[in-house]
Amino acid sequence: MQALYFDGNLELKEMPQPQPRPGEVLVRVRLAGICRTDLEVLKGYHDFQGIIGHEFVGEVAGPPESPFLGQRVVGEINIPCGVCSRCRQGLALHCRERRVLGLRDKNGAFAEYLTLPAANLHRVPDIVSDEAAVFTEPLAAALSVSEAAPAGPGQRALVVGDGRLGLLVSFTLALRGLDTHLVGHYREHLRLAEPYGITTWLEEELSPDDFDLVVEASGSQGGLRLALERVRPRGTVVLKTTVAGHIPLDPALVVVPEVRVVGSRCGPFAAALRLLARGWLDPRPLISRVFPLSQGLEALDFVRGKGILKVLIAAGPSRES
Amino acid sequence: MQALYFDGNLELKEMPQPQPRPGEVLVRVRLAGICRTDLEVLKGYHDFQGIIGHEFVGEVAGPPESPFLGQRVVGEINIPCGVCSRCRQGLALHCRERRVLGLRDKNGAFAEYLTLPAANLHRVPDIVSDEAAVFTEPLAAALSVSEAAPAGPGQRALVVGDGRLGLLVSFTLALRGLDTHLVGHYREHLRLAEPYGITTWLEEELSPDDFDLVVEASGSQGGLRLALERVRPRGTVVLKTTVAGHIPLDPALVVVPEVRVVGSRCGPFAAALRLLARGWLDPRPLISRVFPLSQGLEALDFVRGKGILKVLIAAGPSRES
Repeated sequence: MQALYFDGNLELKEMPQPQPRPGEVLVRVRLAGICRTDLEVLKGYHDFQGIIGHEFVGEVAGPPESPFLGQRVVGEINIPCGVCSRCRQGLALHCRERRVLGLRDKNGAFAEYLTLPAANLHRVPDIVSDEAAVFTEPLAAALSVSEAAPAGPGQRALVVGDGRLGLLVSFTLALRGLDTHLVGHYREHLRLAEPYGITTWLEEELSPDDFDLVVEASGSQGGLRLALERVRPRGTVVLKTTVAGHIPLDPALVVVPEVRVVGSRCGPFAAALRLLARGWLDPRPLISRVFPLSQGLEALDFVRGKGILKVLIAAGPSRES
Repeated sequence: MQALYFDGNLELKEMPQPQPRPGEVLVRVRLAGICRTDLEVLKGYHDFQGIIGHEFVGEVAGPPESPFLGQRVVGEINIPCGVCSRCRQGLALHCRERRVLGLRDKNGAFAEYLTLPAANLHRVPDIVSDEAAVFTEPLAAALSVSEAAPAGPGQRALVVGDGRLGLLVSFTLALRGLDTHLVGHYREHLRLAEPYGITTWLEEELSPDDFDLVVEASGSQGGLRLALERVRPRGTVVLKTTVAGHIPLDPALVVVPEVRVVGSRCGPFAAALRLLARGWLDPRPLISRVFPLSQGLEALDFVRGKGILKVLIAAGPSRES
């Protein structure tokens, strides 16, 4: 099969179809999404070597006895060991020995096939298209903000960053009823938030008010500073993105206003699929372009362009855009 | 009266006795404590001009009709406006117009007399000595960790920093029943924690385990990094101290383990006095030296010495050490 393989260099290469281990299924990938983390991996983050990619929708192609056979699925990306103290304490997501699809000791989704434990799968409701289902993983990550900061619906929230993740986070906050604001750099991205009743701001025009909850989803050096400047005393800042290197932090901005800064990573797939199935949230306007897997290298180049939102890779032969 | 006055330069000078405004009382200062924040003020923090000092115990000397007259008191240091939206939202501690004793638009405690709103006062139980009562403000600040991070008594806590605040924080965590650890640089400071059943570590010998709760009370550049390295996934780091300038923060240390970083400042005076009155906590072994107010400049010099803990200033004439 074809796959985008990284070992310091990224190349599209012909590889043997993977064999599912006990407990695993074989998934034929239909669509995969490029995430900023994939670009970090290409810079050496995680020291990963293998097939990259972790956002996907596919159909289960084996083993023949799998109850999922033939079904359309998405899959959680963390594969914990299941036996260590963290796994037993309910912190499986933080298992030190975990493998992570396309990120850590586990070949990923930019390929014709992948394998994953059956326990990681979620069936995709028929009403959810492939183009929407491929957003399940980032949408779940956006929803994890609600787990990190259970702000009430009467509160005011600001999302910093109008990229893929910032937009999805703002949609989910609006669905919770919060008075949601989004600040970014691209008018055409901000426009995507308007159907959700979100108040949008170009950064230089942001109102001087403060917010109960600020979500930093820009992945930029200035994002954390802006978040800390705009959160109210005793408010919450949720950090959704990592940036390479260090951010200079003025601790007085945390200590004096007694602010809470919470890191947030992966989230609940089932909740994301419920929102997609209801149609309360449609991520498809975020798709900038779909590339066939055979043009995967071009796709990873294209996604770095200014103002590009979601870029998808279609592994099947019939999906060239 | 004599007072330590700062206007860019610090000097001991003769000043008129302050007149209480309506709602205020006049307090004759008995003992005052030097805090790291006072040293920051002398470096220009807060742009403060006036009499410095905010930790004190004294007796109420006026007005004659005050129900507190003649009583021994300690006093909360924040004086909120009481009418702004933050004050009305229960965030008076974060009132933008607040004055703060010895720190912001309000003359402080390194003087023979100070004034403070009667609403800020707490009567000191007779059983609590001046030498213990003068620790009420920093002990309350230590107790605010419990408000910021309500960790259960079955959890493991690490306090980073064996200075005045770190020691007090470790004592209060031990009293909550937590398996409490303290890491620092001075064996003779760490020894002060042993009566509380606290496990103490020199930094280079700290066990590699992780902790549910880590309190950064070192005020050092490396303190936050150590805290983030030692907190468990989804654990809490409480930041108690500011440092001048910026700390380089690796956001991956917050985002990936989904850690919570909470700033914490002032705390509950009444709770601090209850602990002191019970004798469950005795801060007096932290006293390094008592200086008379007439030697206040020497006291502020002495406190900067290596391994010095609490330095007190006795305003009364009979307390020279």
